Amino acid sequence: MAQYVFAVDLGGTTVKLGLFDSEGNVLDKWEIITRKENGGEQILPDIAKSIADKIGEKQISKEDIIGVGIGVPGPVDSKGTIYKAANLGWGVFNVSEKLGELTNLPVKTGNDANVAALGEMWKGGGQGYSSIVAVTLGTGVGGGVIIEGRLVAGATGAGGEIGHIHVEDNELISCGCGNKGCLEQYASATGITRLANERLKQDDMPSVLREGEVSAKAVFDAVKAGDRLAVEVAEIFGMYLGKGLATVACVVNPEAFVIGGGVSKAGEVLFDFIEKNYKKYVFHGAKDAKFCLATLGNDAGIYGAAKLVLE
Amino acid sequence: MAQYVFAVDLGGTTVKLGLFDSEGNVLDKWEIITRKENGGEQILPDIAKSIADKIGEKQISKEDIIGVGIGVPGPVDSKGTIYKAANLGWGVFNVSEKLGELTNLPVKTGNDANVAALGEMWKGGGQGYSSIVAVTLGTGVGGGVIIEGRLVAGATGAGGEIGHIHVEDNELISCGCGNKGCLEQYASATGITRLANERLKQDDMPSVLREGEVSAKAVFDAVKAGDRLAVEVAEIFGMYLGKGLATVACVVNPEAFVIGGGVSKAGEVLFDFIEKNYKKYVFHGAKDAKFCLATLGNDAGIYGAAKLVLE
Repeated sequence: MAQYVFAVDLGGTTVKLGLFDSEGNVLDKWEIITRKENGGEQILPDIAKSIADKIGEKQISKEDIIGVGIGVPGPVDSKGTIYKAANLGWGVFNVSEKLGELTNLPVKTGNDANVAALGEMWKGGGQGYSSIVAVTLGTGVGGGVIIEGRLVAGATGAGGEIGHIHVEDNELISCGCGNKGCLEQYASATGITRLANERLKQDDMPSVLREGEVSAKAVFDAVKAGDRLAVEVAEIFGMYLGKGLATVACVVNPEAFVIGGGVSKAGEVLFDFIEKNYKKYVFHGAKDAKFCLATLGNDAGIYGAAKLVLE
Repeated sequence: MAQYVFAVDLGGTTVKLGLFDSEGNVLDKWEIITRKENGGEQILPDIAKSIADKIGEKQISKEDIIGVGIGVPGPVDSKGTIYKAANLGWGVFNVSEKLGELTNLPVKTGNDANVAALGEMWKGGGQGYSSIVAVTLGTGVGGGVIIEGRLVAGATGAGGEIGHIHVEDNELISCGCGNKGCLEQYASATGITRLANERLKQDDMPSVLREGEVSAKAVFDAVKAGDRLAVEVAEIFGMYLGKGLATVACVVNPEAFVIGGGVSKAGEVLFDFIEKNYKKYVFHGAKDAKFCLATLGNDAGIYGAAKLVLE
């Protein structure tokens, strides 16, 4: 008897959905639009309808469905309660219960970054480990902490919010969260761009970054081409990220850090800058953590959502 | 049928032992000397003999013993392997297996600070919570991270080493671990004494701390008496500890921090200095953590060791 899992990765613009078998093979993938009008009240009904449509299309018997896993963009506790998702217009409610009523299926809910971490450990860059910290270097810096196979959601869903670890006492500009000196201000794509622009203004050192648009990608492309100024920027990035991850290691001492998000497309060159700083700041008992690249890209969310149900 | 648990808290000078029933009531408590000669080879045999003697004395049937829990002063992974315990002379080996052979009983092993954290959550200041971070402010700063009832030992036993979180970029003096700027350098009893001595040298501000010996206890006694210089020292202590715990919260977002160790004898006055700084540095989604005092004192270790076996 086949067993199926529906996996949902709810984003601010689109909802990614996947149909998995119980071994974690993707049988189908599709997307729908995230309708954010009226406080996002149509989002879960839209997802439920899309799942019902797929059940009809594939002629799946409901008894063969193990459940639905969903990653949502906001803090979620281990019971499935979301504590606001500003960019969906959502307040505080239990996502698992609500989507469970709409689909008449068991539902498990997690924070999107946490769920993506679970996906990377199950089928991506973190395979073979059971305790990892996934680090998403995108517009912001997200994280997911998994200890002995279990997600650390946190008491109020803020587990793995490593982008907001304080790493700089002298920052003058506020982070999106309202604090000053958060890791995200230096290690995100946005942060790297800012560091590069600040460095470019300091003096007239020649750099390919002076031509064209400055971006995190441009910085690491330049690093690979041996651009001295870009290397300096990458060193600052690596100092902050290494320092931040050293702190993470003093708390949970994971086997590995799995680095994903847009910035991670730069590849292994990142580790040249992160690892030496990590080793400089970390407690000696945790210095042997491995660094790996995420491999699932945008599919990490649906893989993790499927794993939420299967674990 | 009665069920018994032996609990062991192995320290550098003495070994504390306890006999518990399965509800967690202490039936007996005693101590033996920690014999550190010859690489500490007699320590586990001494413990096994002490347990065997107690079994004889109490005429306990071996089938009525659930097992032995032990907390040891060094990094321990979740399988019971210790990665060196410098002050016992121990190298790397599996404590659970070794003590299991000697006692012919099932053994579970944890790091002493982690095990004490488990004790505080079970029967002490953290009762009623399932996710806590215990913070021990003693000669150093230790910690124990418990998530949904389970200890986070860490891949190489360095989970909860929060005393070595980096909190100061400009420190010139090395921490015992070899790094500079560790939380332990400011928030331990030793660290508070150092902060007070440095402050006293800065100028001639009158202070009761100028009379008698400077210590963490003297600082907080002076704070309670309204001594302005002591309050300044406590503010610096609180800034570092609040900043460090805010970082911890961005990783695991616990329900509560349970503050123990010698410094915690100062009582709730500590929270005046820690909480406001915690709230200043923490990610908003984790700002509602509770702060409580540890209540088990030196018995936290045996309570936690018993819980290791009973969980």
